[in-house]
Amino acid sequence: MAYYIGVDIGGTNLKAGVVDDSGAILGEASVPTGADRPQDVVLQDILRAVRMSVEAAKIDPHEITAAGVGSPGVIDSVNGIVTYNNNLGWKNFAIGPKMSETLGVPVVLENDADAAALGEVVAGCAKGAKSAMIITLGTGVGSGFVIDEKIFRGCEFGHMVIAYGGRKCTCGRHGCFEAYCSATGLINMTKEAITEHPNSTLSEIAKREGVVSGHTVFAAADEQDPIAINIINEYTGYLACGLANLINGLQPEVIGVGGGIGKQGERLLVPLREKVIAEVYEGIKPKCAKIVSCTLGYKAGLIGAAMAAR
Amino acid sequence: MAYYIGVDIGGTNLKAGVVDDSGAILGEASVPTGADRPQDVVLQDILRAVRMSVEAAKIDPHEITAAGVGSPGVIDSVNGIVTYNNNLGWKNFAIGPKMSETLGVPVVLENDADAAALGEVVAGCAKGAKSAMIITLGTGVGSGFVIDEKIFRGCEFGHMVIAYGGRKCTCGRHGCFEAYCSATGLINMTKEAITEHPNSTLSEIAKREGVVSGHTVFAAADEQDPIAINIINEYTGYLACGLANLINGLQPEVIGVGGGIGKQGERLLVPLREKVIAEVYEGIKPKCAKIVSCTLGYKAGLIGAAMAAR
Repeated sequence: MAYYIGVDIGGTNLKAGVVDDSGAILGEASVPTGADRPQDVVLQDILRAVRMSVEAAKIDPHEITAAGVGSPGVIDSVNGIVTYNNNLGWKNFAIGPKMSETLGVPVVLENDADAAALGEVVAGCAKGAKSAMIITLGTGVGSGFVIDEKIFRGCEFGHMVIAYGGRKCTCGRHGCFEAYCSATGLINMTKEAITEHPNSTLSEIAKREGVVSGHTVFAAADEQDPIAINIINEYTGYLACGLANLINGLQPEVIGVGGGIGKQGERLLVPLREKVIAEVYEGIKPKCAKIVSCTLGYKAGLIGAAMAAR
Repeated sequence: MAYYIGVDIGGTNLKAGVVDDSGAILGEASVPTGADRPQDVVLQDILRAVRMSVEAAKIDPHEITAAGVGSPGVIDSVNGIVTYNNNLGWKNFAIGPKMSETLGVPVVLENDADAAALGEVVAGCAKGAKSAMIITLGTGVGSGFVIDEKIFRGCEFGHMVIAYGGRKCTCGRHGCFEAYCSATGLINMTKEAITEHPNSTLSEIAKREGVVSGHTVFAAADEQDPIAINIINEYTGYLACGLANLINGLQPEVIGVGGGIGKQGERLLVPLREKVIAEVYEGIKPKCAKIVSCTLGYKAGLIGAAMAAR
């Protein structure tokens, strides 16, 4: 049996795990990532998490044949270097070569969204799919594209403009998919509606919860609030537009929807699928991507990083 | 030396050619395609064009190792069947197996835009590129994506919405890349401006030429007509939006711009490149795709079909 180390670097915690050929996690560990620390100190923490995960997995360390790391930021996969990560304060952090030196196995470095997409293809919602696009609806909109269980590196459709001259995006463009379909985008729509309709059920729920989240509008829709139903209708319209673009453009077999908003599951997917099929190009309709919820949650990145090393 | 047959099926003519390993055409022939004819009659004409091209190339037919066909319509590349072609009146036309039976060599069938893209990568504007996107600005907007000299099948970004709720497209969606950036889209913008400004230089040129084409607005801009300059500015804005989406999303090394509008060359590309770089995601700017004009014209499809068989 061959085992692989997977490391998923998050903004708050970094996780390491031992994964087998099927994508099952045999042991895992987590330590704080800690922003703005010397890179060698971070490296020691990564290696510590790896050791802890190997202990937890109760395997012989010699059976580990390779390791993979998923990291946010600008990634140079060829050389195993995180070129730039603004949030963590990293610049030219050679994680790959340095980990490889200590562990004595090859180490591959991938973008974290790409790694998570591979995880969902090997062991999650897109298991067995020849090609899959994983769309993460969180603070931003992430995208990962996997063909024949291989990552298509650098797939970044969050900054695809779907509404020319529309909402300003953090990237500087106007009308990006992310500006409308991220959790942030949905929260903005919700806040605007609350200001406009202060006496709606939606406003009441927001007041009761004390904060507007991506969930607020779905909770109000559950209580049949027409304002909330309208927002979900508008939101799924934009989301369907972006997904139909990707289906027309790349014809993935499966689209997995993840991230905070993805957790709404069928409440989101039922209206979404209906709108997507109406938008897809006629000749592609019969082979239109299956749209499903991601199933691995935070484990996707860890499993995918390990599977990238497989 | 190995030789390959390439066949490019157009709406008016079908062309066959003998192509060598480098993508050079050694001999070619053309016959009318003829819509709404029995498929076996069309097949005989394809084979006749192939024989003529082999004679023109003056090679020994036994040195031909494979053949490739580029066809418009819905293509089943796995089985070599044109599933559906509305313009030619074809349904389940098994071109691949039937040609293979007569020629005695393997035959591959590809979408015509895909074949043309491969042609430009092997022997044209994107020669040597690791990945290239070829965008054809004609009656519609075609797209072909080639990675490592292999066609990424089914890439159809003409029907990517860039302006949510915008201009109606022939596909039924609103705001497609094609609705704005095809020659048809540019002609529509030009006609609208002529109606609005009947005394402009643009209107005069259109009257003089007797027809509004994709070239009209460029001719008027050459004479410093501010109306025409505005249209080109607007048009290249939409075109830059679509290309920036593809660069952010897929990071091709080269984008080749072809079709009727592509023939404007640097008159189009100079303002286009400036707008594209402003729209591209910050981390991608340093490796932003090189934007060039396609160089093979009608030969791209023929060469690419042959190279798909290589």
